Amino acid sequence: MRMNENALVERIRRRFGSSKRKNPGLRVDIGDDAALFAVRDGYQVISTCDWFLEGTHFLRDIHPPDSVGWKCLARAISDIAAMGGRPKFFLLSLALPAELTGRWLDDYLGGLQRAARKFHCSLAGGDTTKGDKILISITVFGEVRSRQAVLRSGARPGDAVFVSGRLGEAELGLRLLRDRALRPQLSNPLLKKHLYPEPRLALGRWLAENRMATAMMDLSDGLSSDLPRLCAASGVGTRIDAAAIPTVRDPLKQATRSGKMTATRAKLQNLDLLDVALNGGDDYELLFTANSHQADRVPCKLAEVNVTRIGKITNGRRIALIRTDKLETALDESGWDSFRSQPVPKEKGRA
Amino acid sequence: MRMNENALVERIRRRFGSSKRKNPGLRVDIGDDAALFAVRDGYQVISTCDWFLEGTHFLRDIHPPDSVGWKCLARAISDIAAMGGRPKFFLLSLALPAELTGRWLDDYLGGLQRAARKFHCSLAGGDTTKGDKILISITVFGEVRSRQAVLRSGARPGDAVFVSGRLGEAELGLRLLRDRALRPQLSNPLLKKHLYPEPRLALGRWLAENRMATAMMDLSDGLSSDLPRLCAASGVGTRIDAAAIPTVRDPLKQATRSGKMTATRAKLQNLDLLDVALNGGDDYELLFTANSHQADRVPCKLAEVNVTRIGKITNGRRIALIRTDKLETALDESGWDSFRSQPVPKEKGRA
Repeated sequence: MRMNENALVERIRRRFGSSKRKNPGLRVDIGDDAALFAVRDGYQVISTCDWFLEGTHFLRDIHPPDSVGWKCLARAISDIAAMGGRPKFFLLSLALPAELTGRWLDDYLGGLQRAARKFHCSLAGGDTTKGDKILISITVFGEVRSRQAVLRSGARPGDAVFVSGRLGEAELGLRLLRDRALRPQLSNPLLKKHLYPEPRLALGRWLAENRMATAMMDLSDGLSSDLPRLCAASGVGTRIDAAAIPTVRDPLKQATRSGKMTATRAKLQNLDLLDVALNGGDDYELLFTANSHQADRVPCKLAEVNVTRIGKITNGRRIALIRTDKLETALDESGWDSFRSQPVPKEKGRA
Repeated sequence: MRMNENALVERIRRRFGSSKRKNPGLRVDIGDDAALFAVRDGYQVISTCDWFLEGTHFLRDIHPPDSVGWKCLARAISDIAAMGGRPKFFLLSLALPAELTGRWLDDYLGGLQRAARKFHCSLAGGDTTKGDKILISITVFGEVRSRQAVLRSGARPGDAVFVSGRLGEAELGLRLLRDRALRPQLSNPLLKKHLYPEPRLALGRWLAENRMATAMMDLSDGLSSDLPRLCAASGVGTRIDAAAIPTVRDPLKQATRSGKMTATRAKLQNLDLLDVALNGGDDYELLFTANSHQADRVPCKLAEVNVTRIGKITNGRRIALIRTDKLETALDESGWDSFRSQPVPKEKGRA
């Protein structure tokens, strides 16, 4: 089949069908110059775009195309969750080498479509072109009731700091995949967080609707990189209790149950779970603050996601970590940074 | 200076300042997880994304960074013009090699900022990362009054077909640049259309507000590729009069006035102006249709842009060209296609 841009757009359109039926706000989708949509009275639009690049965020030979499709959308939707919003539409900018327009594209679109259905986010348009590598940029639109969006900038001294889920699970999955200790299967729970992350939409919305969170963001580059960003936006400091951070639970036992692990057993035994929790990227958990009067009303589990209080917001600008030996140190920013870190699967997150 | 993602975002933010003052609808811009904006009552949102990739759409060694900055935004805004809308905000997805985060980035942001001011379109957020090459994806949001947007799908048999401006000027500019016959200066009128295109916002809005256009799109890949798309979306055919197509005016005379031209003089003398007009990309002129009762009321010049009637919409699906010798042929799709064509400056538009 001779592929050109028209044919590629047509393939994507056939695969996804029209999004207009599913999304009454959408007036025009794939196939016109631009998408056209209406916004409900009393709502605002949240919009965000996210790169997902071969060589920087994933590798063609170890990340299955189905996962690439799922994850490129899920991680963009995570930014909508982090504001307390509901995803509605997305635009897909896709550049592909010509040799990937067959099977690879099919599998990629399959993963993308499953994520689109699961998170109720319809394809509304995009742009396709040829590239030397796989280049993906996703723009997601969500909606949130006026004045309900939770920003990074609302944290105040005395607020409690919370995270959802367990931190470092995605990094552990990446390491197992990198070492080729496990096959990249959807069914493997140790890899799920890295290959098929789930944005914390229900939690984010609950916090926004109940006005529980004073500030919120999602954890994409690691707590040690993202927490300072929230604090900088709010003009505050923080003191985090290392012992309270929810880390990966017993990775060796889990891993042994999941497949042949002889090669990586030693590595896992020596794994510093706190380090992985602080500096591992791609968790897509929520980091949020609540004022001291409301902090006790934050449930410890919501929509099947654990919520853990890990510290508090302080005056000044110091980002402090109370280590497990009770000594206080500055929290080093050692999370994922594309300009500093190696591409994903080599030495991710290690500066 | 040690560049990382935070520093890069901060550079961009300082350069552009806050967009919230200029754009009352914008609630949150650069620095949070996502942009947040309100939509006026009675308006809909137009949204579109556009790739602009080194090696596919421009080359680092011949396209000045200032032009890359201008053009990446201008061409995305052209899709808003093509629906009759008004641009409001944009998101910038930028991936850069580390060595370009100095002077190149400054000049790029300069061009981007000039375009943003000129077209009243504010930076509202984005995503930055490291790339092996310069990768740009721009998402633009515009607004249009409800039920005023002009789509590709509204053309009906009997409608007249119009284009704005002169077709092929951008292709000519590209060829002169490729042959290094002219220096890539903003002031050179022959290169302006290729380096610094201007989306036809005033014309598009006038047509939408006056309900003059039954269908509309912008010409980005050449009339021979784009016209069939409009016809396919409308389920119609067309008959275009080659003699009526507004081509580049006297390129040899213009070129000789503009610089040393000995090397390319022969080439320009032999230039097939109709071929360039039909198949050259990057014109960003508007292609639109008007029903036969209104066609005579379409002005031949609007906001200093010429408007020319070039043919009509027919029953069936045939895309026909009445050649200058009066013979009718099928219009071959020979415009720009990234999967078929070579990268921009080598043999663009020649299959």
